[in-house]
Parts: sequence; structure tokens; C-alpha cells
Amino acid sequence: MATQGQVITCKAAVAWEPNKPLIIEDVQVAPPQAGEVRIQILFTTLCHTDAYTWSGKDPEGLFPCILGHEAAGIVESVGEGVTEVKPGDHVIPCYQAECGECKFCKSGKTNLCGKVRSATGVGVMMSDRQSRFSVNGKPIYHFMGTSTFSQYTVVHDVSVAKIDPIAPLDKVCLLGCGVPTGLGAVWNTAKVEAGSIVAVFGLGTVGLAVAEGAKAAGASRIIGIDIDSNKFERAKNFGVTEFINPKEHENPIQQVIVDLTDGGVDYSFECIGNVSVMRAALECCHKGWGTSVIVGVAASGQEISTRPFQLVTGRVWKGTAFGGFKSRSQVPWLVNKYLNKEIKVDEYITHNLTLADINNAFDLMHEGGCLRCVLAMHARDNM
Amino acid sequence: MATQGQVITCKAAVAWEPNKPLIIEDVQVAPPQAGEVRIQILFTTLCHTDAYTWSGKDPEGLFPCILGHEAAGIVESVGEGVTEVKPGDHVIPCYQAECGECKFCKSGKTNLCGKVRSATGVGVMMSDRQSRFSVNGKPIYHFMGTSTFSQYTVVHDVSVAKIDPIAPLDKVCLLGCGVPTGLGAVWNTAKVEAGSIVAVFGLGTVGLAVAEGAKAAGASRIIGIDIDSNKFERAKNFGVTEFINPKEHENPIQQVIVDLTDGGVDYSFECIGNVSVMRAALECCHKGWGTSVIVGVAASGQEISTRPFQLVTGRVWKGTAFGGFKSRSQVPWLVNKYLNKEIKVDEYITHNLTLADINNAFDLMHEGGCLRCVLAMHARDNM
Repeated sequence: MATQGQVITCKAAVAWEPNKPLIIEDVQVAPPQAGEVRIQILFTTLCHTDAYTWSGKDPEGLFPCILGHEAAGIVESVGEGVTEVKPGDHVIPCYQAECGECKFCKSGKTNLCGKVRSATGVGVMMSDRQSRFSVNGKPIYHFMGTSTFSQYTVVHDVSVAKIDPIAPLDKVCLLGCGVPTGLGAVWNTAKVEAGSIVAVFGLGTVGLAVAEGAKAAGASRIIGIDIDSNKFERAKNFGVTEFINPKEHENPIQQVIVDLTDGGVDYSFECIGNVSVMRAALECCHKGWGTSVIVGVAASGQEISTRPFQLVTGRVWKGTAFGGFKSRSQVPWLVNKYLNKEIKVDEYITHNLTLADINNAFDLMHEGGCLRCVLAMHARDNM
Repeated sequence: MATQGQVITCKAAVAWEPNKPLIIEDVQVAPPQAGEVRIQILFTTLCHTDAYTWSGKDPEGLFPCILGHEAAGIVESVGEGVTEVKPGDHVIPCYQAECGECKFCKSGKTNLCGKVRSATGVGVMMSDRQSRFSVNGKPIYHFMGTSTFSQYTVVHDVSVAKIDPIAPLDKVCLLGCGVPTGLGAVWNTAKVEAGSIVAVFGLGTVGLAVAEGAKAAGASRIIGIDIDSNKFERAKNFGVTEFINPKEHENPIQQVIVDLTDGGVDYSFECIGNVSVMRAALECCHKGWGTSVIVGVAASGQEISTRPFQLVTGRVWKGTAFGGFKSRSQVPWLVNKYLNKEIKVDEYITHNLTLADINNAFDLMHEGGCLRCVLAMHARDNM
């Protein structure tokens, strides 16, 4: 390609400061170094983690930065030593890397690869501890090792999942975060069995993916809990069989659920990021075996608590990141499941906008009707 | 037997009031009703749960009562419909029942049988919601469904494990609580694998049984943590390979352990009942897979807390009661393991006294040198 080895100037949404509108800038994207991949991002979506860092509440948030971590694109060029992908490959950038060589990858017990975390955690690339993004010579930090709110981005090779090129990128971009997180929380972390009673707290994209995963696992009852009753009708399509709005009950929600389920649910999932709800999710579990999985990300400094008796009497408290999926190995498998119509993706897309509309897209996230808003990154109005 | 169907008057240690010395009284023990078993207790030991309720800090503690839940004896008589044991059988009373019929027993996921809990939780027997103990006509509450600080006690048939009569009752009485709790926490609740790194907080009987269980499971390192360094030498005999006294370190103990173990332990066990230590035990676990099991019983009203990030990054928080062992099925199996020299019991017995000495025995519990003090219930000086 003509651009290989060259700096690319393209459009990206830059977060210059916390909580200020993103600005579409002409950004310089340096060529990939050894072990790196430059990707043309075709479609990205927005996730609450982007909004959290943007808000300034994330103490590890670095500015200026280019946010975004749920996307799909095509490899533009690769750095030295990159063998697993080549220019033209269709890929999904993965904020959770998978190197196959570190202690975590080799353990067989977790997807939390540690290979590039020391760099991605501080907004730079491993090889030289520098950013590949700049605006007029001023470096712009990377975010989560992905920075997909740019028409071109540079990621570590261990953070790229190569997918079937027949998959529509405007759809499978969702398989970079929220949908796998929900499905995997059920399949990998909780391992829900057929016949189980499941409670899902929060009926956004992740919560609905939990419901979908639980339905696929054969759950007998899937109880959706949300303070917005308007979400129930849509949630039925994802497998939710019963709905509870905590605002409509005087008793604590855990008591309401225990009463409705002859002692509690077999599995519960917190998909909001609220530490009080995390406690309720644990305490609505059945004595003896109920397992609660924390999926939502709480604000920094907040803590969960409960009486230890809850655990001594058999409840289990766990959490999940990217649903326990090994990214490079399993994202392509999820894409195939989508192509085989075994998992939903299209149904989570409620809005389609362009990169130029990104601030509107953030506003939409706070509306109950919005699940995922897909941004076309190379639409004419971005230019 | 001559006593069958009759009220038996015998010696028992009665807790008339919280935190006042137990009084050895002549207690009337009524005959067993339908589904009940009267047991001549030959040997009992003392456990911290007895001391906790005796202290008055247990809000569910009822007085006057007869404490005690770790013991062995011989069936004196049985009530109507009791088929699994008969007079003369050697037995261990089990505070955790096993009916085989309730939702819990049938689940295959827990040992927390619920059949008689509504009675044992409030110090009475199921059939008539009355106590079988009285002193001069005044009822004395049962405790944990066992009340083994009496020469004779009445328990529900679902709370009696029949054991091999060749087993020495002055030893296997320990298999009624502490030793199985520690072994089972490792084998049933955590399922420690060979090669694991294990941390044990608190090196009393339960903690040492955890160490013993971990050694049997093939753990590669067993780190014992206690604020009494005198306990280390003895702990080596139970499998502890390294010792840390938190008082000798400036950093939080979880940080000390993480540093010593290249990121944390695979499994940790809290065997004290201190909620701050429970947090440390979770947080010293390895990211991605470390599992912490709460074994100790915290005082009422106290809560555990941590940052949810600890769980989202793969740690698991669990608890255990009676080590997850199904009491009637598995206590006899543990007795056989002892007879086959596959588990220690004698080594936990540091003192032998008689019922008359029970208040001294409680004092001994607070000394670091004491593990288990076995009381002979029918020694001449009790009379």
C-alpha cells in the first residue's frame, strides 16, 4: 500500500480534556513498529467505559487521548515480526490481549493476558513507551490499547483478532466488547446450567447479552431487573422471562427476588457498575450454591460489602472481564457463531451515525432506548 | 436398656447467662421423641463457636443453654421411626444435619441440609418445638442441635453419624467440627490442585487442618500467617512450609504475600473470623484465578469489603461450613481415614480434662499452645 511505512493523517475524535466535547481533529498516525499493527477502523461503537474515562472519574484516565475500544477494521500495514495478520485482513481490535506465552495465558484459568498491560495501562506502545498518535507534533495518548475513535489506529499484534472477511464489519464490531462480555459471563465465568434461575441487573447491551447467553444455556427463568420499565418489552426478545422494577417495591430488591424464587436465584449478574446493586445481586442468590458475577465496572474507590455469612452459607462472589473469552482465539469463533445465526448482534444496534456525530452518540448512550450506536468512520461527512 | 423411655438425670455444664462461668448441674434429659436419638456423650471438645455464643455476642444465642458441638458417644435409645441407628451404636453428633430429602440435600451442590434448621436455630426439637433438657422443671435450650456438654443429649436422627465402633471416641470426637472444616475447605470448597500455592490465615485447629488438607492435595507451598510466632514450629508438622507474622512487616500482609509469591497465592483460607483478615486473604490471591475461602466465623453485624476490581480481575470469594462435608455420609468416611492413618487427629489434642474442668478448658482455648482440649464426660470427678 502507498501508505505503508508513512505517517497517515486522518480524522479522529480527540478527548483533549475530561468531560469536554470530543473534537474531530486531523491526527498523525505513525507507522507500526515491531510487533504492531496499523488498522483502518471502519466501524466503531461506544461503550460505558469510554464514557467513564471521558468523564474524568477514572483516576487512570490520561488526556489528551483517543478513546474507543469496540470496533472492526482492515489491517493497513504491520510492523516487523508480525506474522499472524497481514495487510487486508479483516480484524477486531481487542482491548484484552492474548499472547499465549505469559503466565496468565499459560495458566488455562484466565483470559487476562499480561503481556502488554504495562504499556496499554498508561496510553503508550510497548516497544518505545511512546504514542503513535499526534496532532501537530503533540502526542495523544492511546486508550485501552485500541483507540478506535480514529480512522486509523496502531495496536499490539497480541491485541488483534483476525476474523472471517465475509462478516459485515458494521455489525461484528460489537463483538469487541459488550456482547462477548455478557455471553461469556454466563458461559465461561458462571457456567450456567440448563434449568437454572438467573437474575440480570441492568438491561443494557451487556445485561441483554447475559440474558441471551442464559437462554442459550437453557435457563428456566431469566429475571430482568432495571429501574426503567420501558426496557422490558425489548428485553423479552433477548430471553428475559420476568421483569422487576426495584422502584415498584418497598422491600430491598434482594428480598423481593428471594421471595419470588423460593430462596433465591442460582446465578446473578450485575451489569451496571453500582456497588449497592452488586451487594443485592449477591444476596439474592440461593443459599448453598448461588453464584453472583460482577460484570459492571464500578467507579474508582468504591467498595463492595456484605456479611461474610452470605459466603459461609455457600454463595460465591466472582467477576468477569471480557466475559472470560480469550480474545484472539475466541472473537473469531464468536464472529462465526454470528454468521451461523447462533448469536444475535444486529438486534443490539439501535442507532447508526458517523464519526462526525460522536458527541451526539455519547448523549444517546444515556437514553434508555439506545443500546449500541455504530459509527461509520469513513462516511463523507467526516471529512 | 433400663433407661429407655425414662428421663435420665445426669451432669451437664449449663450456661445460665452469657459470659458467666458454666455451672455443672444435675440435668433432666427427656426420652427421645419420634425421629430423635438420645446419646450418651463420652467425650467432647470445645470450639470457638461455643465460646462465641457463651460470650453473649451471638445475637441468636439463647440462655440458659447447654453448649457443645464437637463430640462422640454411644446411642442410648431412639425414638419412634428411627432406623439408621440403634442403641449401642457409636456415633458423632453433627451440628450440620443431612436428611437426603430436602432441596439442599438433593441439589448435589451443598451440605447445608435445611430439614431441622428451624428448630435447631432456636434451641428446640422439631416435633414439639420443646427442649429435652430441664433443671428442676426449668427448660434449658439446646445449642446447634447437639448440646454435647451434657452426659446425655437428644438430637434429631438426621444429625447423627454412625461410625466404626473400633474408633477411639476420645480421639474421633474431633471429627465433629474443626478438623473436617479445615480439610473440607481445601478438598470440597476450594478443590486445591497439586502444585498450588496456599495461604492459611490463623494456625489454630482449623488452620492446621487446612494446611494438612493442602499438603495432602499436593500444594507446593503452604504459607502460614499468624500473629503468634510460637505457633510456627508446631505448624510445620501439619504441612506449613513458610511462616509470616504480620506484626513483623510494615506493609499490609496481602502486599507482603503478593511480593513473596510472584503475584499472589492460588488459594487462601481465613480461619480466624476477622473481617479485615478476610479482605487480606482475598487480596493476597493471584489475579486471574486466586480463590479465597472464608472458614472463620465473624462476629454478628460485621461486614467484609473490597474493591469490586479484585473480583472483576478474576479472584473468587467463597465460604464454607463444615468444610462442605455431608455429615452423616462423610463423617464415617473421615473416621475410616483416621483409622487408616490418612488424616491426623491425635496431633490436634493438646489437653485432656474432664467435664468438671470445663471452665478451665475455655480459659485454655485462649492460649496459643492449646489446639483441642478433650473432656472426658464420665470421669469420676464429674460426679
